[in-house]
Amino acid sequence: MADLKSTFLDVYSILKSDLLQDPSFEFTHESRQWLERMLDYNVRGGKLNRGLSVVDSYKLLKQGQDLTEKETFLSCALGWCIEWLQAYFLVLDDIMDNSVTRRGQPCWFRKPKVGMIAINDGILLRNHIHRILKKHFREMPYYVDLVDLFNEVEFQTACGQMIDLITTFDGEKDLSKYSLQIHRRIVQYKTAYYSFYLPVACALLMAGENLENHTDVKTVLIDMGIYFQVQIGTDIEDFKCSWLVVKALERCSEEQTKILYENYGKAEPSNVAKVKALYKELDLEKAFMEYEKESYEKLTKLIEAHQSKAIQAVLKSFLAKIYKRQK
Amino acid sequence: MADLKSTFLDVYSILKSDLLQDPSFEFTHESRQWLERMLDYNVRGGKLNRGLSVVDSYKLLKQGQDLTEKETFLSCALGWCIEWLQAYFLVLDDIMDNSVTRRGQPCWFRKPKVGMIAINDGILLRNHIHRILKKHFREMPYYVDLVDLFNEVEFQTACGQMIDLITTFDGEKDLSKYSLQIHRRIVQYKTAYYSFYLPVACALLMAGENLENHTDVKTVLIDMGIYFQVQIGTDIEDFKCSWLVVKALERCSEEQTKILYENYGKAEPSNVAKVKALYKELDLEKAFMEYEKESYEKLTKLIEAHQSKAIQAVLKSFLAKIYKRQK
Repeated sequence: MADLKSTFLDVYSILKSDLLQDPSFEFTHESRQWLERMLDYNVRGGKLNRGLSVVDSYKLLKQGQDLTEKETFLSCALGWCIEWLQAYFLVLDDIMDNSVTRRGQPCWFRKPKVGMIAINDGILLRNHIHRILKKHFREMPYYVDLVDLFNEVEFQTACGQMIDLITTFDGEKDLSKYSLQIHRRIVQYKTAYYSFYLPVACALLMAGENLENHTDVKTVLIDMGIYFQVQIGTDIEDFKCSWLVVKALERCSEEQTKILYENYGKAEPSNVAKVKALYKELDLEKAFMEYEKESYEKLTKLIEAHQSKAIQAVLKSFLAKIYKRQK
Repeated sequence: MADLKSTFLDVYSILKSDLLQDPSFEFTHESRQWLERMLDYNVRGGKLNRGLSVVDSYKLLKQGQDLTEKETFLSCALGWCIEWLQAYFLVLDDIMDNSVTRRGQPCWFRKPKVGMIAINDGILLRNHIHRILKKHFREMPYYVDLVDLFNEVEFQTACGQMIDLITTFDGEKDLSKYSLQIHRRIVQYKTAYYSFYLPVACALLMAGENLENHTDVKTVLIDMGIYFQVQIGTDIEDFKCSWLVVKALERCSEEQTKILYENYGKAEPSNVAKVKALYKELDLEKAFMEYEKESYEKLTKLIEAHQSKAIQAVLKSFLAKIYKRQK
């Protein structure tokens, strides 16, 4: 595993130096420096879970056969394309959400001299994905499907971000707009497609599969993404349509609803405290645990019903990773 | 011509309603409303020169044969893809440049309730291009080349924007960084590829041509883009690396250079006036006219040297349009 991660990081260095030498553009010294710093800050710095899971999934699809050097390189390169996609979303989301820190450091747009140039840096990150795909996959029979896949997933993520932004910011704060259905859509489109479906879809394409024969795999992975969404730390302050607030609304008495309406989406610690106290009263922690446990069991059944052992293994390893992460 | 424009606008309505019904996303009522308003404000509102030139170019390549209904629709759809690309760049550039108005109305991000949501709207515009291409061109033999073309041109435009932003904003204002070569790179990458090369390249692909056999066409169109770049209205205030300031630096005496350094890139009317007065002293207007005239003649020779009459016609109509526009 540590070994895989170091191989993975070696591939990053190769992809980065390709991009810094890209013949489609005449770099100035300054722009090359800028780009390298931007890439190291935003792409390399992540946990790399999504990227590594492409390589893991591809190995499992090959049922333990050793990968050739080329297969290893290509699966790492696809993994990095997902990390690039993630970096692109995060750089821009942090501006839209006016965030302060990301991965324990200042958000890229808050660095001196960066500011709104970060918007164009985000666009560059997005474009790098297609530079990488074109350089290394152009001759592969699955090239078109790969490009269509990245475009479709990016589109769905942007649509998810759209309803999240509109629901959260459009007009005055109004909890009555929030429902389990809206919450599900936001999580499904904004996170599940690129975090859960995309890595496995990349591995399937590399393994020569036609994605249209694997809609069931897609369904399971999207459900995983919906059940195990990461709980954002500042949902309460940011007036986010989270599972917890939606569940709370279901369970609230009239009086409790009043408290929620008065305190949700306010930054003052006293307001946040009141919401958290209410969550405790409503025993939401426990409800969430149960919800996750049920989801886990439901997914396990679905997975075990799948005809291919190799694909079962891929889906189980995914489920194990995220279920563990929640504990 | 008026007729072509109305056909072109009909195609917009079709493409828009496709996007508002896109099966890859579950729209809420609010998000569908938001999207329609955003598209009408940012995509439909332009002069449509770039988009219409795809249809014009394709007609000229067909040497006056009438287009079938399908050919008309497809060439209009490709034209709209360029208009969508343009809208995507403008929505985001206006945020990066902190602009106030665009096409005589407030910039999208300045509209009430929009703000930084405009960043995601820009991303959506970009993604729409691939939704349109996939829906209408997926089965065409040139589909992959079309997707690669749009990705490459978008990449080059973002790279041009990067050097423009870095040159203009990185560190303190320093005119000594500015040169004809930097100016050329900014204009070539930021504007020429998508405004001049892309429309013709789209028409060539539709006509079944392989773009690798037409690098000479690309060269002529990029040169056109470089010679006839639109003069940005607030170059002086915005400390832009424009042809005029670079030419001025070439011609300035030590004393005049001092004046330029002291006044370029400042918003106060008095500073702007001093720069304009200096431009007059240096007779730059005349120099620019001459430069354009020479460019026009050089390009005409290049075009007439081309072996294909049809392609000559395409390039000449392009040149005529922009040369007229400048006068």
